[in-house]
Amino acid sequence: MKINEITEKIKPLDTSLKEAIQKHLDFLTKPPGSLGRLEELAMQYALIRGTDKPTLTKKKIFTFAGDHGVAAEGVSAFPPEVTKLMVDNMLQGGAAVNVLSAFAGVDVSVVDAGVAGEAPSEQILQNKKTEFINGKIRAGSRNMANEPAMTMDETIQAINLGIQCAIDAKESGYDIIGTGEMGIANTTPSSAIYATLLPSSVEKTTGIGTGVDEKALANKIEIIKKAIKTNETLLTDPISILSALGGFEIAAITGLILGGAALRIPVVIDGYISSAAALVACRYKPATLDCLFFSHYSAENGYREFTEKFEIKPLLDLQMRLGEGTGAALAINLIEASVKVYNEMATFADLGLA
Amino acid sequence: MKINEITEKIKPLDTSLKEAIQKHLDFLTKPPGSLGRLEELAMQYALIRGTDKPTLTKKKIFTFAGDHGVAAEGVSAFPPEVTKLMVDNMLQGGAAVNVLSAFAGVDVSVVDAGVAGEAPSEQILQNKKTEFINGKIRAGSRNMANEPAMTMDETIQAINLGIQCAIDAKESGYDIIGTGEMGIANTTPSSAIYATLLPSSVEKTTGIGTGVDEKALANKIEIIKKAIKTNETLLTDPISILSALGGFEIAAITGLILGGAALRIPVVIDGYISSAAALVACRYKPATLDCLFFSHYSAENGYREFTEKFEIKPLLDLQMRLGEGTGAALAINLIEASVKVYNEMATFADLGLA
Repeated sequence: MKINEITEKIKPLDTSLKEAIQKHLDFLTKPPGSLGRLEELAMQYALIRGTDKPTLTKKKIFTFAGDHGVAAEGVSAFPPEVTKLMVDNMLQGGAAVNVLSAFAGVDVSVVDAGVAGEAPSEQILQNKKTEFINGKIRAGSRNMANEPAMTMDETIQAINLGIQCAIDAKESGYDIIGTGEMGIANTTPSSAIYATLLPSSVEKTTGIGTGVDEKALANKIEIIKKAIKTNETLLTDPISILSALGGFEIAAITGLILGGAALRIPVVIDGYISSAAALVACRYKPATLDCLFFSHYSAENGYREFTEKFEIKPLLDLQMRLGEGTGAALAINLIEASVKVYNEMATFADLGLA
Repeated sequence: MKINEITEKIKPLDTSLKEAIQKHLDFLTKPPGSLGRLEELAMQYALIRGTDKPTLTKKKIFTFAGDHGVAAEGVSAFPPEVTKLMVDNMLQGGAAVNVLSAFAGVDVSVVDAGVAGEAPSEQILQNKKTEFINGKIRAGSRNMANEPAMTMDETIQAINLGIQCAIDAKESGYDIIGTGEMGIANTTPSSAIYATLLPSSVEKTTGIGTGVDEKALANKIEIIKKAIKTNETLLTDPISILSALGGFEIAAITGLILGGAALRIPVVIDGYISSAAALVACRYKPATLDCLFFSHYSAENGYREFTEKFEIKPLLDLQMRLGEGTGAALAINLIEASVKVYNEMATFADLGLA
C-alpha cells in the first residue's frame, strides 16, 4: 500500500541550510528583511527543496473533481450536474483556474476522482486544452447524512490517486504543485472535517459555500450534525474521518499533499476544501505542514479558526471563495517571484560594497 | 503651467458602465462574486479606462530618485551615497524592482528627479538594461529642519516632471503605470507629510525606515517636529506642504499620480513614500483617488492610519518596506490577472446554460 511507504518519508525540514540561505538573502541589495514575506517564501522554498541554490521553473496544479451524495440534502446553491459541466469547462480552458494558471505559467491537470455525471464527450476529449486524468473511483460519494461517504478501501484508492499524481509530477520535473478541486456540495464534507478534526463546532465551521441563503445554511448545519452523529463510531483517526465525512476529491488532495511532502515538492494549498484535506494530512503526519504554502484566506466561515489553530498566515486575502485552484495559481506566482528575487538580485559585493 | 491644465481634467469616475461590467462578471462561469477582490479590481480598472471591454498589455513603473538635505541629521540607517549607487544598480538591472518588474512583464524607467551624487557613468549608461531619464532639478533637497526642502518653483518643476512621465506613458500606449522611489532618508519627509496632511502626530507616522535603532528613531521624530516648526507658516495647502516638507522624487510621484488620473491611466501606488505623494495628490484633487490602486500595506509605522482615514484596502500584506516600486510590480500583476479573468473566462452561455 503506497500510503505507508510514502508517508514514512515525511520528516521535519532539515534547517542546517538556514544560515547559508539567510546570508544570501542579507547580501542582496536591500535592507535586511525589507522584502518581508517574500524573503520568508524564498527561505521556506529553499529549505523544502534542500538547497541554498533553488530554482523554480515547472509548476502544476491538480484540480480533483468529485460529487457528493450529500448534495441530495439541498446543501448547495448549485445542482450536482454542475460538477461535470465545470470539468468540461476546465478541459476547454474556460474556467477561472485555467485563466489564472495560464497567466502564472502553471500547467493544470483535471483529475476525475469521483464525478457522478457522464465522462467528458469524445469531442471534448479530442479538443481539450487541459490535461485530463480519469481516476474515477466511484460515481460520487454516498450521502454521509445516512452512511459513510466512502468505504475505507475507496478512501485509500483516492489517497493513492493523489499520491500517484505527486509521484508523476516529481518524475516530470515539476518544482512546485498546487491543489484545486471542483465538486458541488463539497464545502459540506469540508465543514464536517473541520468540525471533527480541529475540533470546533459545526456552526463555526459552516458557511454559505457558493452562496446558499440563511434557511439553506441552517439546513446545511443540521445535515452536517446528522452526518457526524450517523458516523460517530467511525470518527476515530484522520483517515477514518476522511472516509466517513469526506469525498473522493478531498481524499485525493490529501494524497497529493502527503505525496508532495514525502517527495519534497512544495505543495500550495488552495482554499477551504483543499485546506480540509491539508488538515487531514497534517493530523495524520504533522511534519507535512513544513512543506505546505497556504495561498489565501478563504472567505468561507471557519477558515480563520483553522489558520489560527495552525498558526499559519496565508499569503493573500482577496475574499475569494471559488476553489478550483484559483488561489493556488496566484500564490505560486508570488512564490516564483520570491525565488526570482533570491536568484536574480545583485549583491552588495556586485556593487563593490562590503 | 502644466499642473493646472492637466489637473482640471481630473473628475470622479463615470459609473454608468458599472451595470454592464457587473453583468459580464456575473455571466462568467463561477458563483457571483466568488473571485472577491479580483472582480473588484477588474471593475475599477474597467471604470477608469471607461470601457466594459478593457485590455491590459503595456505596463510601466516609474522609479523616481532624489536625495534629501535632512539626511545630514542622521535620520537614516544608510548614508546618502547609497541613492546614487542604487540608481546605478537599477540601471544595471540588479535591484529588487528590476527583478519583480521583469517577472511581471512591467517596464521600468528610472528618473533622476534630484539625486545629489554624480550622474551615472558613461559605462553604466552605455550598458544600461533599464530606461534612464535625467530630470534632475537640483542635487538633493535642502535640509527641511532648517529651511523649506524645495522652493515652490522647484516643486512645480518636479510635479511637472512626473506629469510629463504620465503624458509620455499615455503616448507610448501604456495601460497602467506604477510608482516607485529611491532616496536615502525619504521616509523622513514622508512622515512629515503624513503628520501634516492626515493630520496625525509625528510619533504615530514615524517608523524605522530602512532600519534605524530606537535612539535614532527618537532623533528622527525630533527632527521631523523641528522641520514642521521651522516651516510652520508655509504649511497652508497640499502643494506648499509638499514644497516645505517633501523632496524631489516625492513631488515627481505626486505629478505622475495627477497626470495618470487626468489621462485615465490607472496608477498603482507602491508603499509608504509613494502613498505620501498620493496623499498630497488626493488632498489637492480628491477625485484622484478613484484612479489609484494601493498595492500593499507598507510595514512602516503610520501606514495603517493612512489606509483607515482613506478607507482603502491595499491588495497585499507581505510586510514589505523596501519601496522602489516593488509593491507596485506585484500589484500590477494581480490587476492584470483580474483583467485576464474578465476577458478570458467562459460565460454560462458558452456552456449552454441560461
